[in-house]
Amino acid sequence: MTQDISQIMQDMGKAARAASKELASVPTDQKNQALRAAADFIRADRQAILTANGKDMAAASGLAGAMRDRLFLDEGRIENIATSLEAIADLPDPVGDVMAQWTRPNGLQISRVRVPLGVIGIIYESRPNVTADAGALCLKSGNASILRGGSESVLSNRAIHHCLVQGLKAAGLNPDVIQLVPTQDRAAVGALLGLVGYVDIIVPRGGKSLIERVQKDSRVPVMAHLDGICHVYVDKDADLDRAVAITLNAKMRRTGICGAAETLLIDQKILNSHLPAIAEALNKAGCELRGDSAVRDLVASVVPATEDDWNTEYLDSILSIRAVDGVEGAMAHIDAHGSHHTDCIVTENAQTAAVFLNRVDSAIVLHNASTQYADGGEFGMGAEIGISTGKMHARGPVGLEQLTSYKYQVRGDGQIRP
Amino acid sequence: MTQDISQIMQDMGKAARAASKELASVPTDQKNQALRAAADFIRADRQAILTANGKDMAAASGLAGAMRDRLFLDEGRIENIATSLEAIADLPDPVGDVMAQWTRPNGLQISRVRVPLGVIGIIYESRPNVTADAGALCLKSGNASILRGGSESVLSNRAIHHCLVQGLKAAGLNPDVIQLVPTQDRAAVGALLGLVGYVDIIVPRGGKSLIERVQKDSRVPVMAHLDGICHVYVDKDADLDRAVAITLNAKMRRTGICGAAETLLIDQKILNSHLPAIAEALNKAGCELRGDSAVRDLVASVVPATEDDWNTEYLDSILSIRAVDGVEGAMAHIDAHGSHHTDCIVTENAQTAAVFLNRVDSAIVLHNASTQYADGGEFGMGAEIGISTGKMHARGPVGLEQLTSYKYQVRGDGQIRP
Repeated sequence: MTQDISQIMQDMGKAARAASKELASVPTDQKNQALRAAADFIRADRQAILTANGKDMAAASGLAGAMRDRLFLDEGRIENIATSLEAIADLPDPVGDVMAQWTRPNGLQISRVRVPLGVIGIIYESRPNVTADAGALCLKSGNASILRGGSESVLSNRAIHHCLVQGLKAAGLNPDVIQLVPTQDRAAVGALLGLVGYVDIIVPRGGKSLIERVQKDSRVPVMAHLDGICHVYVDKDADLDRAVAITLNAKMRRTGICGAAETLLIDQKILNSHLPAIAEALNKAGCELRGDSAVRDLVASVVPATEDDWNTEYLDSILSIRAVDGVEGAMAHIDAHGSHHTDCIVTENAQTAAVFLNRVDSAIVLHNASTQYADGGEFGMGAEIGISTGKMHARGPVGLEQLTSYKYQVRGDGQIRP
Repeated sequence: MTQDISQIMQDMGKAARAASKELASVPTDQKNQALRAAADFIRADRQAILTANGKDMAAASGLAGAMRDRLFLDEGRIENIATSLEAIADLPDPVGDVMAQWTRPNGLQISRVRVPLGVIGIIYESRPNVTADAGALCLKSGNASILRGGSESVLSNRAIHHCLVQGLKAAGLNPDVIQLVPTQDRAAVGALLGLVGYVDIIVPRGGKSLIERVQKDSRVPVMAHLDGICHVYVDKDADLDRAVAITLNAKMRRTGICGAAETLLIDQKILNSHLPAIAEALNKAGCELRGDSAVRDLVASVVPATEDDWNTEYLDSILSIRAVDGVEGAMAHIDAHGSHHTDCIVTENAQTAAVFLNRVDSAIVLHNASTQYADGGEFGMGAEIGISTGKMHARGPVGLEQLTSYKYQVRGDGQIRP
């Protein structure tokens, strides 16, 4: 049985590699045609997708509320899937972009040109829209993809994948460009993580346990972030209103996204003047506050924070608060407890801001703006497939450009090396 | 014993990580000061380095000629080591470079800024100059390094490393910025390859068996190339003189470098007109020719090529030659047998050249220029630490810029996300 799955995955890998070689030089128009056709098929197949999703929902009656919500599709959500495909068609194609070019004294003309990575494996939880988003982002960036969605969404994924394949065919493209793993056997994930030579990169999308497993087991490079333990540091030179507004937004706008703040660091010099107003705003919004003793002494509603709190991504209406000794104290805390994802300083002092932006070793560092801007769309990069906290290849939001590699094209007129 | 080595390597990793955090924000001048001081110490310690190298050479009397030559140092080679350090000081510092910046409609100013990778592990064969080159390239790009050289060069490496450390100290930098593994126990390599969390990337430099072992065993990402099976394709529209000159240079200028050509592909349509002159030039230069039957029918000196020849990096005065059916035939051969390193087309037909440059999936593709230009120095990138054939992170020559990552600095004036 497991032998069979290993063979199935090998065959998918081989087919994906072959398809990726063709896709690498397909013109932009043809890729866009496939994406727009897929959007049309999604709309036309609306009823079939709803029926499939209904069966998935019925089978998944034991799921927790948030996971049920992610699995659920209605007409509006299906329309969103279709418009997302069209939005990706509207994005500029990174493939073929000349990133840099120069001429050497000997006349050699050197260009660094974007090329696709090749084959991308996507492993995700039961969110049917990821099937369309991930497949489409890979297609637009010239990459073949192998998609492995959560087992609760199996019928929904198949219905959506069917539309993507119809779109590929309508544009005259090889349907192996976007493949969906046909089996729900968990051994398929292990096999996918071992497809060295066929799969160039794995992008896991989901909760911490999924990412952890993928990072631990994969023999193929992984682009992901494990945690988003994001900090807001309110400096002694912070404007009070800004500090309140940014902290409230960074924590409470949406608590379940990776760019949500989990810890507030506040300069002990302005604890008295700034903390009460910040705490009041958070309390009113329904946020639980956990703090060190200095914080608790000042605000009665704060419960004690343990050492674990500084290392926890709550993804919930909870915020840990710690008084620190200036920007150096804040940076030391972030270095010890952060996850190199997104961190923010609130200050009117440009010099202090520069120190923080230069020295905090995170993918995204912000001055006087909410951590919830940690998002490829908000960065103007179009859609993103995730956010990377690794330093290799891509860091921060992973959009179309980050799904590419490059090569050097060198044009000569007979140069031989002396 | 192995327990001890594992502990030694852990401690080195921890020290390197701590040193890398300090180094990340050290000004360019201070790094250059360390490099120039190290060059001075190399010159001042000339005698001690020669003595150490003499002992290494005496102990390595069983080594083959080419390896002895790589191990050997004389006054001229020591001076070259010193001037290389100064040349790296003269290169622009990539750290802090603003790679891109833009402003969002909401006023957020986003900059993508180069930062060091962190800690780089270098594993190399018995070439003492690599100790200086690799340590210096890492230092200049803001990275701490852990160096593990071949055991035959142990005393030479220690003498050179001592000068680098003196240079670091003279500039007031932490000596842990460049560490040399103190033990020659092979278990140290395995331990280095497992330092996840302390080492960000491994760069192996050496022969195929070293690279293979590192790529197979490393738990840390590896930047390298395994093979340099480089092709020259002589198209039907090739100028004969250019074809002769480029093929001869690509194969014979230096046969032992990774950019040396190993296979000549020649369009069957011009076999009669072009092959004899090319073969004659190669014969005269002392190159053994191995070919398919069409090639052998035309040139008597060619011996039969086996299937293995198409997959072999000779690194010697041997060239395999195959007649192919036009550019499509050449690309099919390269796709089947190449190593994605460097490939060249010789043609006067711009359209055919464009097809080759766009579709051949190699780090470097050249038109009418020798494959021996596959080199960071020749590309104008300054010194290189190697050439990567992987598509993740860096592809082609790995210079200072390729030893960096980036982060996003976002400057706002109170933006909160709606």
